[in-house]
Amino acid sequence: MIAGIDLGGTQVRVAVAAGDGRMIGTAKARTPELGGPAGMVAWARENAERLAAGARIEAVGIGVPGPSDPRSGVLVNPPNLVGWPPGVPLRAMLEEAFGAPVHLENDANLAALAEFKRGAGRGLHNLAYVTWSTGIGAGLILDGRLYSGAHGSAGEVGHMVLDPGGPECFCGQRGCTEAYASGNSIARGAGRPAREVFAAAQAGDPEAAAIVEHAARMVGLALLNLANLVDPEMIILGGGITESWSLVEGWLSEPLLSSPFVTPNRRPRIVRAELGADVGLVGAVEWAIENR
Amino acid sequence: MIAGIDLGGTQVRVAVAAGDGRMIGTAKARTPELGGPAGMVAWARENAERLAAGARIEAVGIGVPGPSDPRSGVLVNPPNLVGWPPGVPLRAMLEEAFGAPVHLENDANLAALAEFKRGAGRGLHNLAYVTWSTGIGAGLILDGRLYSGAHGSAGEVGHMVLDPGGPECFCGQRGCTEAYASGNSIARGAGRPAREVFAAAQAGDPEAAAIVEHAARMVGLALLNLANLVDPEMIILGGGITESWSLVEGWLSEPLLSSPFVTPNRRPRIVRAELGADVGLVGAVEWAIENR
Repeated sequence: MIAGIDLGGTQVRVAVAAGDGRMIGTAKARTPELGGPAGMVAWARENAERLAAGARIEAVGIGVPGPSDPRSGVLVNPPNLVGWPPGVPLRAMLEEAFGAPVHLENDANLAALAEFKRGAGRGLHNLAYVTWSTGIGAGLILDGRLYSGAHGSAGEVGHMVLDPGGPECFCGQRGCTEAYASGNSIARGAGRPAREVFAAAQAGDPEAAAIVEHAARMVGLALLNLANLVDPEMIILGGGITESWSLVEGWLSEPLLSSPFVTPNRRPRIVRAELGADVGLVGAVEWAIENR
Repeated sequence: MIAGIDLGGTQVRVAVAAGDGRMIGTAKARTPELGGPAGMVAWARENAERLAAGARIEAVGIGVPGPSDPRSGVLVNPPNLVGWPPGVPLRAMLEEAFGAPVHLENDANLAALAEFKRGAGRGLHNLAYVTWSTGIGAGLILDGRLYSGAHGSAGEVGHMVLDPGGPECFCGQRGCTEAYASGNSIARGAGRPAREVFAAAQAGDPEAAAIVEHAARMVGLALLNLANLVDPEMIILGGGITESWSLVEGWLSEPLLSSPFVTPNRRPRIVRAELGADVGLVGAVEWAIENR
C-alpha cells in the first residue's frame, strides 16, 4: 500500500492506494482543527492505517504548500499554514510515525505530476501545470519527469515580472503575475472577494468583466513567457479560478494564439485540468510510487 | 574520433576530437565563401578527414543558428545564414557525407552543454547559459542534461515579454528582452554599432553609459524571470557583449540581487562564460559524445 497526503491551509486529505496508484480510500479533516504539525501527523497515520486495514504502508508521498525544501523535507515558513512554527521537519516526523520512507514535494509540482500521470497530460513528455487561485504557481514535467529546480523552487510563474513599472506585489517585487491576477490581488483591486467578481462577470457586469479580462490576459502573458522559456506541449490550468473556465479561457489563450513569434507548429495547447479536487492526493500517491 | 561543427553566419569551424572530448585539431572558413549547404558539407568533411589523419570518424555533432528542428535535423530558415534556402536537411546531408550518425542542435543549447561539461558550470546539475550578442538566446541544462523542449525551442529568453506596452520587437511581439537589449536594438536606438556604444561607455560617455545600463538592467530582469521559472544554480553569460563584462556585470546582477522574493539561499550565481570562441566547437563535440 501507498499513502498520499495533500496538506493545505484549509484542509488536509489522506489517501491509501494500491501499488499501481488505484485509490482504496480517502479521509479528510480541517487543518486548523488538528492543532499543528504533531496533531496533523498523528491524524494522517491513524487514518492511513484505518484505510489500509492491516496492510503495510510501504511509502508515503505528501504535497505541501510552499515554500518548502523537498531535499531536506522541511517546511520553510508557508504562509498558508496559519499557526505552524517555521522550519517544521515534516518528512522526519512522518517517517517516524509511519515507519516508511516519505517523499515530500511542493503541491503545485505534485499537481503537475498528477495531471501528467492520470489527467490531461497523459502520454505527453513536456508540460506545465499552472494553478490559478488565491496565489499563482506552477509545476513542470520536462522530458517525462518532474523538474523541481536546483532548490525545489522551479515554476514560480506567479512572481515572474511582467512589467517592472507595474503594481507592487506582496513579495516586494513589482509587476509580478500575482500582483495582477492572483485571487488576493483581484479581491483587493475590486474591494470584494474574487469569487464575487467572477460571479458578477458571469452575470454580465461590465466592470467585473473588465477586471476578469485584465487578470486573465496577464496570466496569458505569463503563459506566453513560460512557453518561450520551457517549450511545453501543453499548459494545464487548475486552481479555483479555473472553475470560471468559459470566462477566462479566451483571454488566457490570447497572448499565445496571437504571438507572431510562437508559430503554430510549436504552440502549446492550453487546457483545463481534469482531476479537480483530487489532484493533490493523486499527485502525492504518484510521487511516492515514482520514488519507491 | 569525433567531429564537431560550429556553423555560424559569419564563419564555420570544424574540430576533430578523441572519444573523451580532447581536441586534436580545428579548421575554419568564412561561411558565405563556401557557397551554401552543399559547399559547407563538402568543406567540413574534407577538413575533418584531414584532421583525423586516417582515423575513423564515428559521430558528428553540429551546432546551428536557430530556428532549426533538432529532431528532424532540418534548418527551418535561420536569418543568419544569408543566401541559404529554407528547409535545408542538414543532418541527412552530413550523414551521407560522413557515413556516420550526426547530432544537430541549436547553437545556444550546445554552448550551454559546453560550459556545463568543460566550462564555468562543471560539476553543477542545473544551469542556464545566456548568449548576449546580436540577438539573445539561452540553453538550459536541467537535472544534468540538455533540455531543449518539446519542439527544440526551449530557452527563448530573448523573446520573453518584459513589458506588454514596451517597444516593438522585430519578432512582432512587444517588450521582448531583445527589443531592449540585443546588439541590434542597441545599435538601432543609439544610431551607431553596439560595439561603439560599449566603447564610448567604457570611455566615460554618460549617454552611452545610460544606454548600456538600461540594456543590462533589462537583461537582468529576464535573468530574474528565468531564475524564478527554472531555478538554476548558475546563470552563465556568453556572447559578444559580455566582452564588456565589467561594464554590464553590476546592472545584469542587480534585479536578482535586489529581489526580495529570490532569497540568497536559492539565488543563482551570475558568471561569465569560460570557453570563449571555442564554446560552439566544444559543445558540438560533447553533443556527439553524449549521443554516441
